[in-house]
Amino acid sequence: MKQEGWLSTPGLLVCLCLGTLEPVQGGKVLVMPVEGSHWLSMELLVRELSLRGHEVVVLVPETSLLIKDSDYYRTQTFHVPYSQAEMTGSLNTLKHSVFLKPPTVGDVLVNVERLLNFTSFQIKGCEGLLYDQPLMERLREEEFELMLTDPFLPCGSIIAHAVSLPVVYFLRGIPCGLDEKANQCPVPPSFVPRFFTGNTDHMDFLQRVKNVFMAVVDEFLCWKFFAGFDELASRYLGQDITYKELISQGAIWLLRYEFTFEYPRPFMPNMIHIGGINCGKRNSLPAELVKFVEESGEHGFVVFTLGSLVSEMPKEKATQFFEAFRQIPQRVVWRYTGPLPDNLPENVKLMNWLPQNDLLGHPKARAFITHGGTHGIYEAICNGVPLVMLPLFGDQSDNVHRMVYRGVGEALDIFTVTTAKLLKALNKVINDKSYKEKMMKLSAVHNDRPIEPLDLAVFWTEFVMRHKGADHLRTAAHELNWVQYHSLDVIGLLLLIIVTVVMVTVKCCTFCFFKCCARKTLKKKEE
Amino acid sequence: MKQEGWLSTPGLLVCLCLGTLEPVQGGKVLVMPVEGSHWLSMELLVRELSLRGHEVVVLVPETSLLIKDSDYYRTQTFHVPYSQAEMTGSLNTLKHSVFLKPPTVGDVLVNVERLLNFTSFQIKGCEGLLYDQPLMERLREEEFELMLTDPFLPCGSIIAHAVSLPVVYFLRGIPCGLDEKANQCPVPPSFVPRFFTGNTDHMDFLQRVKNVFMAVVDEFLCWKFFAGFDELASRYLGQDITYKELISQGAIWLLRYEFTFEYPRPFMPNMIHIGGINCGKRNSLPAELVKFVEESGEHGFVVFTLGSLVSEMPKEKATQFFEAFRQIPQRVVWRYTGPLPDNLPENVKLMNWLPQNDLLGHPKARAFITHGGTHGIYEAICNGVPLVMLPLFGDQSDNVHRMVYRGVGEALDIFTVTTAKLLKALNKVINDKSYKEKMMKLSAVHNDRPIEPLDLAVFWTEFVMRHKGADHLRTAAHELNWVQYHSLDVIGLLLLIIVTVVMVTVKCCTFCFFKCCARKTLKKKEE
Repeated sequence: MKQEGWLSTPGLLVCLCLGTLEPVQGGKVLVMPVEGSHWLSMELLVRELSLRGHEVVVLVPETSLLIKDSDYYRTQTFHVPYSQAEMTGSLNTLKHSVFLKPPTVGDVLVNVERLLNFTSFQIKGCEGLLYDQPLMERLREEEFELMLTDPFLPCGSIIAHAVSLPVVYFLRGIPCGLDEKANQCPVPPSFVPRFFTGNTDHMDFLQRVKNVFMAVVDEFLCWKFFAGFDELASRYLGQDITYKELISQGAIWLLRYEFTFEYPRPFMPNMIHIGGINCGKRNSLPAELVKFVEESGEHGFVVFTLGSLVSEMPKEKATQFFEAFRQIPQRVVWRYTGPLPDNLPENVKLMNWLPQNDLLGHPKARAFITHGGTHGIYEAICNGVPLVMLPLFGDQSDNVHRMVYRGVGEALDIFTVTTAKLLKALNKVINDKSYKEKMMKLSAVHNDRPIEPLDLAVFWTEFVMRHKGADHLRTAAHELNWVQYHSLDVIGLLLLIIVTVVMVTVKCCTFCFFKCCARKTLKKKEE
Repeated sequence: MKQEGWLSTPGLLVCLCLGTLEPVQGGKVLVMPVEGSHWLSMELLVRELSLRGHEVVVLVPETSLLIKDSDYYRTQTFHVPYSQAEMTGSLNTLKHSVFLKPPTVGDVLVNVERLLNFTSFQIKGCEGLLYDQPLMERLREEEFELMLTDPFLPCGSIIAHAVSLPVVYFLRGIPCGLDEKANQCPVPPSFVPRFFTGNTDHMDFLQRVKNVFMAVVDEFLCWKFFAGFDELASRYLGQDITYKELISQGAIWLLRYEFTFEYPRPFMPNMIHIGGINCGKRNSLPAELVKFVEESGEHGFVVFTLGSLVSEMPKEKATQFFEAFRQIPQRVVWRYTGPLPDNLPENVKLMNWLPQNDLLGHPKARAFITHGGTHGIYEAICNGVPLVMLPLFGDQSDNVHRMVYRGVGEALDIFTVTTAKLLKALNKVINDKSYKEKMMKLSAVHNDRPIEPLDLAVFWTEFVMRHKGADHLRTAAHELNWVQYHSLDVIGLLLLIIVTVVMVTVKCCTFCFFKCCARKTLKKKEE
């Protein structure tokens, strides 16, 4: 029995009414987030679930930086075997290293090393939670219906397995594409570029060689990166299980990208694209910012931030930026807490935290200088603002590459950036109209969707609660090993049969031929 | 700039408001449908487009059976080089053959032969249209924005290419999976069963061998089936183009299935699943039918139809059905126009045409006897009615197999069906509660969706009009040949390098070893 859908005047407004489904009233959701920017968009879903009447409990390490108490959800703090100072120290090392280390050929290994250092703390924290028996017992008793987690860290998946909860994953991706591997999604290296290769989806032969090579390297990286996850999962769950096997049980994968950002590629039915979830709603700007940006005149203003983690930089580096900003007619709003120059340019406003999406949505926003995190990039796409990008670590250089490829931004190297380079890039994206035009087209395509990403995320999360999973979307490929998945055993058998048939035929022919020849020779001899 | 989305009370109603997109006011759509049941669901989309203010022109052969004039769209009739009688004769041959031919090992070839016979008429009709220069000129002058067509026949795609229109395809699938091949969608034979194999997505080794073998046979079938399409496309367009290349240009593929029916498998971003589009709306039953089904008492009633094409059967065959129906407590509504028995059972009502979906939606509907077309199957799923299925031709045996696998129906063989077999199957699906329970679960999952299939179809059709295509969803794989797509050239090169390195190493080692040995032997000899 369904309620009727209705469609209003063409192209303007579509309102879709879902069937009278069994409501998930008072659903209980356990959330195991990942610290840092990962939490920023997951929180949007958590809030919306709460607004829709679900009880949400968020597990928070006592050293958390961004996950705070809220009216929308209950937090459950857990003890971690390291201090706030140690955590901050580790983060500072990461933050500073992005300005100090020059780019090398071993960029990939440097990235992996940084990631390993960064996650090792959080894994320790995860252990603190898992082995807190009274807390785990309380969680078990709460009878949750769902685990919402980011598989970038193993804690949520391990708890879900231990407490037998269906899992909804919320992610941009995890290192070496383990998410796709675990979800049995084909990723042909001929048109799906691997991370850190600098390839797009259009590759020549040598780029494809590089891509296949990187796909092989990925296997090694996976092993290196997830060894600790495998060990923890096996130890805690008391069974021989890899992290890949563990996350392959995920019911729904909410992926924070779609195809104005990512290259078009195959995906599986339980992979739901919610790219742009973070720029659905805009709030009005605070009064002081309104004044600053409104008074920027015809030249407008530039927004500059290097993400939630990095708000400082060495003085010499910062000077390059300040000097560039001094020479442009635009005003600049910069999230910056580092050392200041002797004479701060008048057109620059420094802030501790930026209402990034609200600023980018302002009609006078001319360009966005960003580190290339997916949140920032999507906010630029949603609002149609061209980019100048300075990737720092992780997936950022790949994200940036996608935007440069689409002609909506310029990339600079944080290690070698100078005032001149900055000026050139800024002038280009602001004054060469093609950047704005391409970005507006991309924005129009991105914003033209049948359902908002947040609503889609809510729908599928509630779907998993209503049906205790999403079994109808689970592929049978999960029961195949690598050889079987690629039909190598079958191809082997068919080749064997063909080779056998050919060889037997050749042998028979040779035998008959020689028999015949021998008889003739014998005959001749007899003659 | 988007309007705000709103969500009502949890789980009950979700209303989603699209952004204020550039409206497609007065959009002009050209439709090239495929005759028969294919048209029935496409018409729903055509009507909805018309209701949303688009001007729709439907191309109709003068011998059309089901495509009639309508207030919703303008029809443009075209001359075909065969008479109505010839067309009906061809259809009758097809209809009768399904009861006469016993199933054989060469079932696949029989199916292909029937398909070839059936489509050869429509291809002739297509030629009639393409080479009608005044008509084609008029179509060109109308400046349509979009071609909506079913790629089961080549006419729509050829016209779209000739007139440079973006194409939206509307289909269940086309023979030998040419649609997936053309759209570069991976279909791993290890878990995606091929048609006519009788395999599910869970296969043992021998079934996988059969599946890979069938994938190879498919290549031959493709060649056989589409040779005429290739020839016509190349001849008309004056360029060397295959039908596969032609349809690979499709912007959006609206697929009349989803994953309560089809096995979960990879797909591409421009493949939109609209399974169940035909059962979105139910009308009230006509008075005479209301009386008949309402008075069926606690036992309820059975709906029986063999699709839009087949409403007759040989008398002996029909007798098996009439005798079975005489022995069940349910009433039967049967779409039947064939020879009647001497004493018609009182519980049977024969009709020329059934309001199938409306009947299946009645709470007293106990079972649905069907040939296993996707429309009927989806109406059963939407309304939660268990199935007794008698596949006749085409994809029907595969459709039926999917439903039997899910435990929501029983399959019978039309050639060997008897009263006893029918009674057994009907009793099973009506009285064994597991069928109804599984069907209700499937129905609940199917009906639980974020957006109605018809609205989704409308959205993507209008999207293609708004953006003159859907380029951001088009994969770069279209630029690769088969060897490149599967990276066989790269794998070949890497293997060559490995083999060369190994061989050179072995040669060097052998050389050094012998050198060493030779020196030792020489030394010994000298000693």
